[in-house]
Formats: sequence, structure tokens, C-alpha cells
Amino acid sequence: MSFLTKHIAILTDFGLDDIYLGMMKAAIAGISPAARIIDLSHTIPRGDVQRAAFEAWRVRPYLPPETVLLAVVDPGVGTNRRAVAIKLPDLYCVGPDNGLFSFLLYSTDKYKAVELMNPHYQLRTISHTFHGRDVFAPAAAHLAQDLALEEFGPRIQDLVRIPDPLLKDMGAEAIQGEIMHSDHFGNLISSIGRIEITDNDFSFKPWIPSFSTRTLIAQDYEVILPQGDVVPLGRTFSDVPKGEALAYIGSSSLLEIAINGGDAANALNLTPGDKIIFKIKG
Amino acid sequence: MSFLTKHIAILTDFGLDDIYLGMMKAAIAGISPAARIIDLSHTIPRGDVQRAAFEAWRVRPYLPPETVLLAVVDPGVGTNRRAVAIKLPDLYCVGPDNGLFSFLLYSTDKYKAVELMNPHYQLRTISHTFHGRDVFAPAAAHLAQDLALEEFGPRIQDLVRIPDPLLKDMGAEAIQGEIMHSDHFGNLISSIGRIEITDNDFSFKPWIPSFSTRTLIAQDYEVILPQGDVVPLGRTFSDVPKGEALAYIGSSSLLEIAINGGDAANALNLTPGDKIIFKIKG
Amino acid sequence: MSFLTKHIAILTDFGLDDIYLGMMKAAIAGISPAARIIDLSHTIPRGDVQRAAFEAWRVRPYLPPETVLLAVVDPGVGTNRRAVAIKLPDLYCVGPDNGLFSFLLYSTDKYKAVELMNPHYQLRTISHTFHGRDVFAPAAAHLAQDLALEEFGPRIQDLVRIPDPLLKDMGAEAIQGEIMHSDHFGNLISSIGRIEITDNDFSFKPWIPSFSTRTLIAQDYEVILPQGDVVPLGRTFSDVPKGEALAYIGSSSLLEIAINGGDAANALNLTPGDKIIFKIKG
Repeated sequence: MSFLTKHIAILTDFGLDDIYLGMMKAAIAGISPAARIIDLSHTIPRGDVQRAAFEAWRVRPYLPPETVLLAVVDPGVGTNRRAVAIKLPDLYCVGPDNGLFSFLLYSTDKYKAVELMNPHYQLRTISHTFHGRDVFAPAAAHLAQDLALEEFGPRIQDLVRIPDPLLKDMGAEAIQGEIMHSDHFGNLISSIGRIEITDNDFSFKPWIPSFSTRTLIAQDYEVILPQGDVVPLGRTFSDVPKGEALAYIGSSSLLEIAINGGDAANALNLTPGDKIIFKIKG
Repeated sequence: MSFLTKHIAILTDFGLDDIYLGMMKAAIAGISPAARIIDLSHTIPRGDVQRAAFEAWRVRPYLPPETVLLAVVDPGVGTNRRAVAIKLPDLYCVGPDNGLFSFLLYSTDKYKAVELMNPHYQLRTISHTFHGRDVFAPAAAHLAQDLALEEFGPRIQDLVRIPDPLLKDMGAEAIQGEIMHSDHFGNLISSIGRIEITDNDFSFKPWIPSFSTRTLIAQDYEVILPQGDVVPLGRTFSDVPKGEALAYIGSSSLLEIAINGGDAANALNLTPGDKIIFKIKG
Repeated sequence: MSFLTKHIAILTDFGLDDIYLGMMKAAIAGISPAARIIDLSHTIPRGDVQRAAFEAWRVRPYLPPETVLLAVVDPGVGTNRRAVAIKLPDLYCVGPDNGLFSFLLYSTDKYKAVELMNPHYQLRTISHTFHGRDVFAPAAAHLAQDLALEEFGPRIQDLVRIPDPLLKDMGAEAIQGEIMHSDHFGNLISSIGRIEITDNDFSFKPWIPSFSTRTLIAQDYEVILPQGDVVPLGRTFSDVPKGEALAYIGSSSLLEIAINGGDAANALNLTPGDKIIFKIKG
């Protein structure tokens, strides 16, 4: 066993009103008492695999090396959907094979995946409706105890993928994307990125491989909302007066839309799936 | 002091919007900095002792050995209700003596209980309204530090019990029970169990001692709702078409009712206390 | 590095539906894997610096020695508001310099503060909208690793303060205060305190320095609500019949108002900012 502290980062749609998450943590504690838990979110909308995949992708750069990402959004529990563990460079993933890890796989082809079939590394009794506790939590805990991936079951190759989010080159240095999530503050996070800013230069490095072009841009930009409204690009909330909308490069290097001191999701009436365009000003 | 990592599992009705839980965890950390916290649930409905007792019972099989279960649903705080610590085989319980541990005591007569009276193991100032922080959290932390149960106060015998949930033999291999809880997914968990399935055999092992018969059953079953509707028994959600109701043996070996891809509590209009019958088909 | 377990207590307005808190914890884990996290509250109303300052003050007596209090309620993120770390006796504070720590500074002049400017102790890329993750969490983690305060940046003196809560001597042993918070149970916590009770003696030790008098009182008291209603003083909820209101000295030694078995905030229609008077009976 290594001397590295192992972290298990948990992402679910279980909500916070039940003991399901507590049961998973108890199951982990029984196997790997020294593992550290990092709660990512447990209020992913019920069954929303895309949202979970997006959050897994967004949090990834901040996870300590060798973290086990335990993601359970599992509407197909009890069916023949597979249970998987995946080794990416510096990250393990455990969960149902329903596309939860699709966006994490964008950045690499170097992964190994196995199907969780070895009953030695599951709870003694497996329910038909709660593999989070009976299959996935034990697997994550055993990975945190440095058990080799191969011990869990046979190698598999063809992981389930979900469709790419919208990210489309519109020509003339305009990029179309979609709203992915509106957060607790009402800020809207889009699929347009990653955009990095150095001095006055913008650098666009698409996070979705199907977007093949790589554009380097250094000009004034703005954002067009679905109804045609134009939102200026700023750096932070206070770059526009209180109550006004701005677009900015958010903390995941994605284009976001907010209202200074307000709630953009409500005020602009935008929801996940709505399309926006990032383009040269004027 | 033992070398076993000690876990303190916390169950409260404090909600997540106040710092009360944080104060309890801070009090624990000051006494037992190495103890590991497992949050079970903090959104037990305010003062709902039965619900807390049920959740404590459901999570118990998954808690690591020697866990301290710190349960604070305490509408009688400041009155003369007693504060207790209980040692069960492989589990400590700490909380108010108001019936919170009633269901955990079903399975054993082998327990020791003491009243928490020794001021050495409480905070220096005891408020009249927050024994969770001032009395119970310190007791849990000292137990996690391997302090002997006897140090906390005098032995007591007659712990407060709450009434048994409904579980009634209706004859002709029909069992009546009640809805105990509707979860985050709208799934309804009943008092009917524990039911274990091996191959095609059902084995019914009542979890409530007052239900004296032990029935072994191996036939087709169905569930009758309060209004007379019949729900078929399945194995997992997808055993019925999307939008249809099924009964199944849930992850606590209790009979549950769900709607595949839907919210059974809403759609069937069932709430805790509603009576259902599990019976031979036809 | 010391052998003391270090605790990082986190207080934010991030809510529980996003991964922002998880990102902060991940950032901490990458720097200080052994630090223990204590979640205080993450549902401070968005941007409510006063409420966060109040909760930080209330929890402080319960935090273990050398705890790092990481408080992020930061509506001015991305502007020129400063990022600070403060060393108080036995407590470190990290957060934006917007008054969050005002009430903690009431009790002492013995503090050192620095501006967080050293990029070595921040994440490599600093977003304009999430200093919680990029600046504050790394600083808290490095403090938990025993890095000296001076390493983070230059000493500063003139920390931003928010106005004092209302606490006013009305003469004739009457004190006016305001409702600070209504909690999960609907109990109303006021600014009137700290009041300590020993036997039948009340001792009033104002927590806000601008309240200069120190009154010792030992008589029957009552509370006058904004509309003139009178609430009797009791010791705990059950000192009045079910459904009736009482005032009592709460678990932070502040005057509180509750309804036995009910929700005082709803029933009495009181909200933060409403004024009440604590006075001799009759």
C-alpha cells in the first residue's frame, strides 16, 4: 500500500434528504477507513447523466493525483448496463457505464477500463436498486486501498458515450454553443471554451474534440442570446453597472453569462440547451 | 487508545442552513481530532423521532465496527428527558432518550446504557436548548477516544421506546404494513420486510419482534394500495414499462413501491402512515 | 511542521447544488491532504456578509485551537477588494477583506493581517470570478501546513469593517437589539447578549464594544416585540404551553425567541433587522 493519502470524490443525484449517501460513505469507511471523502455535488438533477458528466469534467483539473472519482447517476440500475472502473492518467473513475465519464475521455485515449464483476470487491448482498452502495462504493474504496484495476473484472473497450454538447464553428470567427448549467447564483455556464486570456490575447482551445478548428483571436467580442439580445464581454461582474448583463470567461475557462448583483438565469430566461453565439463585436 | 480508526456517524433534524451541525463537528474535533465523521442525514423532518429511528436502523448494517452513532432529534431538549449512551454489539449510540434507538434495540437484548451525567465529558457551559453540541457531541467524541461507557454516568435499564411500525399478519400469506418514508426519487419504502430473495425463493424475516410468525414463501406476489389498486412485484424499475408502478424488494430488504422513471409518492399520492398489503397474487 | 491536526472550517454562500465547494475542497486536498474539513454552512444568503460575520462569531468558541476559518462570501470578487489572511489568538481567518471578520475582531486588538499576494501560494491560473478556489482555499491549506503568515504577502492594518448590529441601552435596565437570524426551526436569534445565567443571576456582557455599559441584573425580565406584544422569559421551550411564544437565553448566550413546538419566525412574522426590547417585567 502506498503512503499517498487517497481521496474519493463523490458525485451523485441522491439529494441530501436520504441516508443513501451516508450508506455509501459507511461502506467506504468499512473498507478504506483512511480514505478522504470529497463531496462534489449530490444534487445533480435525477438521472441527468449529461450534467454529471459536465461537472466531472469541470472539477477534474482540481482533483489531487490518484483521486478516485465515484460518480453515481444511475437510472439504469438493475438492468444489464455495465458497472465500470476506469484508469485515466492520474485519476480513477467508478460508476455505471452510461456515459458519465464521456467528457473526461475527450482529453485522452490512454485509459484502461474494466467491468466490475468480481464479487470479492462488492458487498456480500447486492440489491437490485442501489449499486452505489453495493458495487460502486466498495470498488472505489478498494481502489483507494491500491487494489489493481485488473482485480475487479475483465478489460472492456467500448465505453458508452453520450452526445457531444453543442460547439460549432459559424465562420467569421463566430462560435455557437449552448447553455450547460445555471448555477446557485443564477450565472449561466456555456459550452463555449476553453478560452484563455493572456494580456489582451484570447486563445480558444476547444474542449470537445469534434470541434476541429483552433482559432486564435485577439479582438473585441460579444455574445448573442437566442432572442438576438447582445451582451458585452467583460472580465468580472462589476465591469457592467449593477443589474446589467455581461459575458465573461468563467472559472472553468468557459464563456459564462451573469448579471452584476443579479440572477441571469431568471432575468434572461435562459435554461440549459439554449443556444448562444460568441462573435466579433459589431 | 486503540489503533482502530473511529467513525462518528451523525443523524439530525438540524437542516443544512444553520451552523449547528458545524458547531457539533467543531466540538468533536476539539476532543477527538482523528475521528472520522460520516454524515447520514440532517434533514430528518423537525422532531420526527420515528423517521430518525428508522434511518438509524436502516443504515446500521453498513456502519464500520465500533462506529459511534450520534443521533440528535431532540424536541424535548431542556426538559428532564435523559441523555444517554448505549453500547450495542459493535455499535455505540449517543442521543436523547426519546426512542431514537428503539428499532436498533429490536435485534438484541445485549446492550448497556448509561445516563450522560458526568460534567467532565460535557462542554464547560451547557445551554438549555442545544445538548447536541454541549452534551451529545462531546460524549460521542470521548467514546471515539475509547473512554469506557461507565465513565459517563450511572447504568440505566428502562430506555424509552416508541411504538412499533405497522407489520401485521393478515392470514392466507398476506402481510399488512405501512409506508415509512418517501425518498428523493419519490420511491416509497414500507415496513414490510425483511424479505430476502434467493433464486426464486422468498424468505420473510420480520424485523419487528412483535410480528411473531416466520413465513417462508415461494410464489407470485403483488401489492394492494390503500385505494385497492394492485401493483405487480418486480425485481428492478425497468421490469415495468416507463411510467408504470411496481413493487420490489428494496436496498434495505424492505418492500418498496416505485414508478419506472417517475415519482411514486406524487403519482400514487401515498405518504408515510398509509397502509399497504403484500399478498399472494390473484 | 507541527504534529497538531489542523482543521479548516469552511463558511460560504455557494449553496449545495454546485461543485464550487467540491472544487475548493479538492484544491485544499492537493496542498494539505491531512487537513480536516469542518463544514460550517454553505447556505449563507448570497452576498450576505453580515450574516456570515455573525455565524463566524457564533461558532468561534467551539473551533479547535489553530483552526483555519475559510470564509467566502465574496460579491466583490474580481474587483480591487483585497484578499486577506488574519491571525487571531488561536484562530486563522482567510477570505475577502469585506468585513466578514468584523465581529471576530470585536474581542481582540491582537491580530496580524496580511494581503494574499504571493502567487506561490495560489493556484497557477487565477480566475476573475472564483477566488474561493484559486486564492482562498490554497491559502487556508498552506496555513494548515504551518506556512507562516508573513509568506503570503505584506502586512496590512486597516481591515474593512461592517456596521455594528443594533445593541442599545434604553435606560431603566432595558436593552434594544435586533433579530439577526431565524434558524431552521423558526427560532429567532437576536443581537442581545451575551447573557449568562448563574443560579438566578443574570450577567450581561455586551459582545459589541460600542455598547459601553455593563449591567448586572437579577430580576424578572420580558421581551417586547416590534408590535408591542410581550413575550415572557423562560429557560427552555417547554416552559410555556405548546404553541406559545417564549424568550430564552439561547445556545450562543444571545436572547432568542421561539414558539414551543412551533415556528416563531412564521407565527410572529419577524425577520432579521426587526427591533426588540429586553426589559424588566411590568
